[in-house]
Amino acid sequence: MKLDSAGLQVLSPAECVELLASTPIGRVVFTDHALPAVQPVNFVLDGTTVVMRTTPGSKLAVAARNTVVAFETDEFDPETGTGWSVTAIGYARAVTDPVETERLAHLSGAPWSPDGNDRFIVMPIRQVSGRRVRVRP
Amino acid sequence: MKLDSAGLQVLSPAECVELLASTPIGRVVFTDHALPAVQPVNFVLDGTTVVMRTTPGSKLAVAARNTVVAFETDEFDPETGTGWSVTAIGYARAVTDPVETERLAHLSGAPWSPDGNDRFIVMPIRQVSGRRVRVRP
Repeated sequence: MKLDSAGLQVLSPAECVELLASTPIGRVVFTDHALPAVQPVNFVLDGTTVVMRTTPGSKLAVAARNTVVAFETDEFDPETGTGWSVTAIGYARAVTDPVETERLAHLSGAPWSPDGNDRFIVMPIRQVSGRRVRVRP
Repeated sequence: MKLDSAGLQVLSPAECVELLASTPIGRVVFTDHALPAVQPVNFVLDGTTVVMRTTPGSKLAVAARNTVVAFETDEFDPETGTGWSVTAIGYARAVTDPVETERLAHLSGAPWSPDGNDRFIVMPIRQVSGRRVRVRP
Protein backbone atom coordinates (compact mmCIF):
# COMPACT_ATOMS: atom_id res chain seq x y z
CA MET A 1 0.00 0.00 0.00
CA LYS A 2 1.54 3.29 -1.12
CA LEU A 3 1.27 6.25 1.25
CA ASP A 4 1.78 9.92 0.43
CA SER A 5 3.74 12.45 2.48
CA ALA A 6 0.70 13.09 4.66
CA GLY A 7 0.26 9.36 5.38
CA LEU A 8 -2.78 8.90 3.14
CA GLN A 9 -3.22 5.82 0.95
CA VAL A 10 -2.49 6.58 -2.69
CA LEU A 11 -4.97 5.08 -5.15
CA SER A 12 -3.91 3.57 -8.46
CA PRO A 13 -5.10 5.22 -11.71
CA ALA A 14 -7.44 2.24 -12.30
CA GLU A 15 -8.95 2.61 -8.83
CA CYS A 16 -9.34 6.35 -9.43
CA VAL A 17 -11.25 5.85 -12.69
CA GLU A 18 -13.44 3.18 -11.08
CA LEU A 19 -14.32 5.52 -8.21
CA LEU A 20 -14.93 8.42 -10.61
CA ALA A 21 -17.41 6.24 -12.49
CA SER A 22 -19.27 5.42 -9.28
CA THR A 23 -20.57 8.93 -8.61
CA PRO A 24 -22.94 11.15 -10.62
CA ILE A 25 -21.71 14.50 -9.28
CA GLY A 26 -18.28 16.06 -9.43
CA ARG A 27 -16.77 19.49 -9.00
CA VAL A 28 -15.02 21.27 -11.78
CA VAL A 29 -12.27 23.66 -10.84
CA PHE A 30 -11.47 26.51 -13.16
CA THR A 31 -10.54 30.16 -13.20
CA ASP A 32 -13.23 32.82 -13.31
CA HIS A 33 -12.12 36.43 -13.77
CA ALA A 34 -8.63 35.47 -12.54
CA LEU A 35 -10.00 33.93 -9.34
CA PRO A 36 -10.15 30.24 -8.45
CA ALA A 37 -13.66 28.88 -9.00
CA VAL A 38 -15.33 25.58 -8.31
CA GLN A 39 -18.75 24.32 -9.27
CA PRO A 40 -20.64 21.05 -8.80
CA VAL A 41 -21.77 19.43 -12.02
CA ASN A 42 -23.55 16.29 -13.20
CA PHE A 43 -21.27 14.06 -15.22
CA VAL A 44 -20.72 10.65 -16.73
CA LEU A 45 -17.58 8.96 -17.90
CA ASP A 46 -17.26 8.20 -21.61
CA GLY A 47 -14.32 5.81 -21.49
CA THR A 48 -11.74 8.00 -19.77
CA THR A 49 -13.37 11.25 -20.80
CA VAL A 50 -15.36 13.24 -18.26
CA VAL A 51 -18.62 14.44 -19.85
CA MET A 52 -20.15 17.37 -17.96
CA ARG A 53 -23.65 18.60 -18.61
CA THR A 54 -24.31 22.28 -18.24
CA THR A 55 -26.61 25.00 -19.51
CA PRO A 56 -25.86 27.67 -22.10
CA GLY A 57 -25.98 30.62 -19.69
CA SER A 58 -23.91 29.09 -16.91
CA LYS A 59 -20.60 30.47 -15.72
CA LEU A 60 -19.17 27.02 -16.29
CA ALA A 61 -20.18 26.93 -19.95
CA VAL A 62 -18.36 30.19 -20.49
CA ALA A 63 -15.29 29.78 -18.28
CA ALA A 64 -14.44 26.08 -18.52
CA ARG A 65 -14.08 25.68 -22.24
CA ASN A 66 -10.78 25.34 -24.03
CA THR A 67 -8.77 25.49 -20.85
CA VAL A 68 -7.07 23.18 -18.36
CA VAL A 69 -9.42 22.26 -15.52
CA ALA A 70 -9.41 19.95 -12.54
CA PHE A 71 -12.33 17.68 -11.84
CA GLU A 72 -12.87 16.30 -8.36
CA THR A 73 -15.16 13.71 -6.85
CA ASP A 74 -15.19 12.41 -3.33
CA GLU A 75 -17.27 10.45 -0.88
CA PHE A 76 -17.13 10.42 2.90
CA ASP A 77 -18.76 8.19 5.46
CA PRO A 78 -19.41 10.23 8.60
CA GLU A 79 -19.95 7.00 10.56
CA THR A 80 -16.48 5.59 9.98
CA GLY A 81 -14.67 8.88 9.39
CA THR A 82 -13.17 7.57 6.17
CA GLY A 83 -13.59 8.38 2.52
CA TRP A 84 -11.86 8.90 -0.77
CA SER A 85 -11.11 11.72 -3.15
CA VAL A 86 -10.15 11.56 -6.82
CA THR A 87 -8.94 14.48 -8.93
CA ALA A 88 -8.54 14.36 -12.69
CA ILE A 89 -6.87 17.00 -14.80
CA GLY A 90 -7.33 17.64 -18.47
CA TYR A 91 -8.09 20.07 -21.23
CA ALA A 92 -11.80 20.95 -21.29
CA ARG A 93 -13.56 21.49 -24.58
CA ALA A 94 -17.11 22.71 -25.22
CA VAL A 95 -19.02 20.41 -27.56
CA THR A 96 -20.58 22.31 -30.42
CA ASP A 97 -21.27 19.54 -32.96
CA PRO A 98 -25.01 18.61 -32.86
CA VAL A 99 -24.34 14.92 -33.58
CA GLU A 100 -21.79 14.67 -30.77
CA THR A 101 -24.18 16.59 -28.49
CA GLU A 102 -26.97 14.11 -29.20
CA ARG A 103 -24.70 11.13 -28.54
CA LEU A 104 -23.54 12.61 -25.22
CA ALA A 105 -27.11 13.48 -24.23
CA HIS A 106 -28.11 9.85 -24.70
CA LEU A 107 -24.98 8.65 -22.90
CA SER A 108 -25.66 10.90 -19.93
CA GLY A 109 -29.27 9.82 -19.67
CA ALA A 110 -30.49 13.33 -20.19
CA PRO A 111 -33.26 13.97 -22.69
CA TRP A 112 -31.87 15.71 -25.72
CA SER A 113 -33.31 19.20 -25.88
CA PRO A 114 -33.92 20.42 -29.41
CA ASP A 115 -34.07 23.94 -28.00
CA GLY A 116 -30.41 23.66 -27.06
CA ASN A 117 -30.71 23.43 -23.29
CA ASP A 118 -28.07 20.72 -23.08
CA ARG A 119 -24.49 21.87 -23.37
CA PHE A 120 -21.67 19.45 -22.86
CA ILE A 121 -18.11 20.04 -21.84
CA VAL A 122 -15.77 17.12 -22.34
CA MET A 123 -12.46 16.62 -20.59
CA PRO A 124 -10.29 13.68 -21.64
CA ILE A 125 -8.37 12.70 -18.50
CA ARG A 126 -4.68 13.48 -18.79
CA GLN A 127 -3.72 12.98 -15.16
CA VAL A 128 -5.61 11.32 -12.36
CA SER A 129 -4.76 10.94 -8.70
CA GLY A 130 -6.64 9.84 -5.64
CA ARG A 131 -6.38 9.21 -1.94
CA ARG A 132 -8.17 7.39 0.80
CA VAL A 133 -8.95 10.19 3.22
CA ARG A 134 -9.46 10.22 6.95
CA VAL A 135 -12.09 12.65 8.14
CA ARG A 136 -13.65 13.57 11.42
CA PRO A 137 -17.35 12.91 11.76
CA MET B 1 -36.12 34.66 -4.89
CA LYS B 2 -33.13 35.68 -6.98
CA LEU B 3 -32.15 33.37 -9.86
CA ASP B 4 -28.83 33.29 -11.70
CA SER B 5 -28.36 33.07 -15.47
CA ALA B 6 -28.67 29.28 -15.32
CA GLY B 7 -31.97 29.48 -13.41
CA LEU B 8 -30.52 28.45 -10.05
CA GLN B 9 -31.59 30.10 -6.80
CA VAL B 10 -28.95 32.51 -5.52
CA LEU B 11 -28.29 32.30 -1.78
CA SER B 12 -27.69 35.38 0.36
CA PRO B 13 -24.29 35.81 2.05
CA ALA B 14 -25.90 35.07 5.42
CA GLU B 15 -27.41 31.83 4.09
CA CYS B 16 -24.04 30.91 2.59
CA VAL B 17 -22.20 31.33 5.89
CA GLU B 18 -24.91 29.39 7.74
CA LEU B 19 -24.61 26.49 5.28
CA LEU B 20 -20.79 26.61 5.43
CA ALA B 21 -21.00 26.26 9.20
CA SER B 22 -23.25 23.19 8.89
CA THR B 23 -20.65 20.89 7.32
CA PRO B 24 -17.32 19.59 8.65
CA ILE B 25 -15.67 18.98 5.27
CA GLY B 26 -14.92 21.38 2.46
CA ARG B 27 -12.71 21.46 -0.60
CA VAL B 28 -9.93 23.93 -0.98
CA VAL B 29 -9.04 24.99 -4.49
CA PHE B 30 -5.54 26.17 -5.20
CA THR B 31 -2.76 26.00 -7.75
CA ASP B 32 -0.16 23.25 -7.59
CA HIS B 33 2.76 23.46 -9.99
CA ALA B 34 0.74 25.78 -12.23
CA LEU B 35 -2.17 23.31 -12.43
CA PRO B 36 -5.59 23.64 -10.81
CA ALA B 37 -5.76 21.52 -7.66
CA VAL B 38 -8.53 20.66 -5.22
CA GLN B 39 -8.41 18.80 -1.94
CA PRO B 40 -10.96 17.89 0.72
CA VAL B 41 -10.16 19.18 4.16
CA ASN B 42 -11.65 19.25 7.65
CA PHE B 43 -12.58 22.72 8.72
CA VAL B 44 -14.46 24.88 11.18
CA LEU B 45 -15.64 28.46 10.96
CA ASP B 46 -14.10 30.98 13.35
CA GLY B 47 -16.52 33.84 12.88
CA THR B 48 -16.23 34.37 9.14
CA THR B 49 -12.78 32.82 8.88
CA VAL B 50 -12.39 29.32 7.46
CA VAL B 51 -9.98 27.32 9.64
CA MET B 52 -8.53 24.31 7.82
CA ARG B 53 -6.62 21.59 9.59
CA THR B 54 -3.81 19.93 7.72
CA THR B 55 -0.53 18.12 8.29
CA PRO B 56 2.99 19.50 7.86
CA GLY B 57 3.93 17.30 4.90
CA SER B 58 0.74 17.76 2.91
CA LYS B 59 0.58 19.37 -0.51
CA LEU B 60 -2.05 21.70 0.90
CA ALA B 61 0.21 22.96 3.70
CA VAL B 62 2.83 23.88 1.12
CA ALA B 63 0.69 25.17 -1.75
CA ALA B 64 -2.22 26.90 -0.06
CA ARG B 65 -0.41 29.38 2.13
CA ASN B 66 -0.16 33.07 1.41
CA THR B 67 -2.25 32.86 -1.72
CA VAL B 68 -5.82 33.40 -2.89
CA VAL B 69 -7.84 30.19 -2.66
CA ALA B 70 -11.42 29.13 -3.12
CA PHE B 71 -13.18 27.01 -0.54
CA GLU B 72 -16.23 25.00 -1.49
CA THR B 73 -18.81 23.00 0.43
CA ASP B 74 -21.90 21.33 -0.90
CA GLU B 75 -24.57 18.83 0.00
CA PHE B 76 -26.84 16.84 -2.28
CA ASP B 77 -29.84 14.70 -1.55
CA PRO B 78 -29.99 11.90 -4.13
CA GLU B 79 -33.63 11.22 -3.16
CA THR B 80 -34.95 14.64 -4.09
CA GLY B 81 -32.29 15.55 -6.64
CA THR B 82 -31.66 18.87 -4.92
CA GLY B 83 -28.81 20.38 -2.99
CA TRP B 84 -26.74 23.43 -2.39
CA SER B 85 -23.23 24.63 -3.02
CA VAL B 86 -21.34 27.47 -1.37
CA THR B 87 -17.98 28.87 -2.47
CA ALA B 88 -15.91 31.31 -0.44
CA ILE B 89 -12.85 33.14 -1.67
CA GLY B 90 -10.08 34.65 0.39
CA TYR B 91 -6.41 34.98 1.10
CA ALA B 92 -5.08 31.86 2.84
CA ARG B 93 -2.41 32.16 5.51
CA ALA B 94 -0.49 29.41 7.29
CA VAL B 95 -0.65 29.80 11.07
CA THR B 96 2.81 29.68 12.61
CA ASP B 97 2.23 31.25 16.02
CA PRO B 98 2.05 28.49 18.70
CA VAL B 99 -0.57 30.35 20.77
CA GLU B 100 -2.83 30.85 17.75
CA THR B 101 -2.26 27.20 16.77
CA GLU B 102 -3.36 26.02 20.22
CA ARG B 103 -6.47 28.21 20.15
CA LEU B 104 -7.44 26.88 16.70
CA ALA B 105 -6.77 23.29 17.75
CA HIS B 106 -9.20 23.70 20.66
CA LEU B 107 -11.70 25.46 18.42
CA SER B 108 -11.59 22.69 15.84
CA GLY B 109 -12.02 19.97 18.45
CA ALA B 110 -8.73 18.40 17.55
CA PRO B 111 -6.31 17.48 20.29
CA TRP B 112 -3.38 19.83 20.25
CA SER B 113 -0.28 17.87 19.26
CA PRO B 114 2.87 19.10 21.00
CA ASP B 115 4.85 17.31 18.29
CA GLY B 116 3.48 19.74 15.74
CA ASN B 117 1.15 17.44 13.84
CA ASP B 118 -1.57 20.07 13.65
CA ARG B 119 -1.08 22.74 11.04
CA PHE B 120 -3.75 25.31 10.43
CA ILE B 121 -4.46 27.40 7.40
CA VAL B 122 -6.85 30.28 7.93
CA MET B 123 -8.83 32.04 5.24
CA PRO B 124 -10.87 35.11 6.19
CA ILE B 125 -13.81 35.12 3.78
CA ARG B 126 -13.63 38.00 1.34
CA GLN B 127 -16.32 36.85 -1.07
CA VAL B 128 -18.99 34.23 -0.68
CA SER B 129 -21.58 32.95 -3.10
CA GLY B 130 -23.95 30.04 -3.16
CA ARG B 131 -26.68 28.35 -5.13
CA ARG B 132 -29.43 25.88 -4.64
CA VAL B 133 -28.53 23.19 -7.15
CA ARG B 134 -30.63 20.71 -9.04
CA VAL B 135 -29.00 17.35 -9.55
CA ARG B 136 -29.98 14.07 -11.05
CA PRO B 137 -30.09 11.12 -8.65
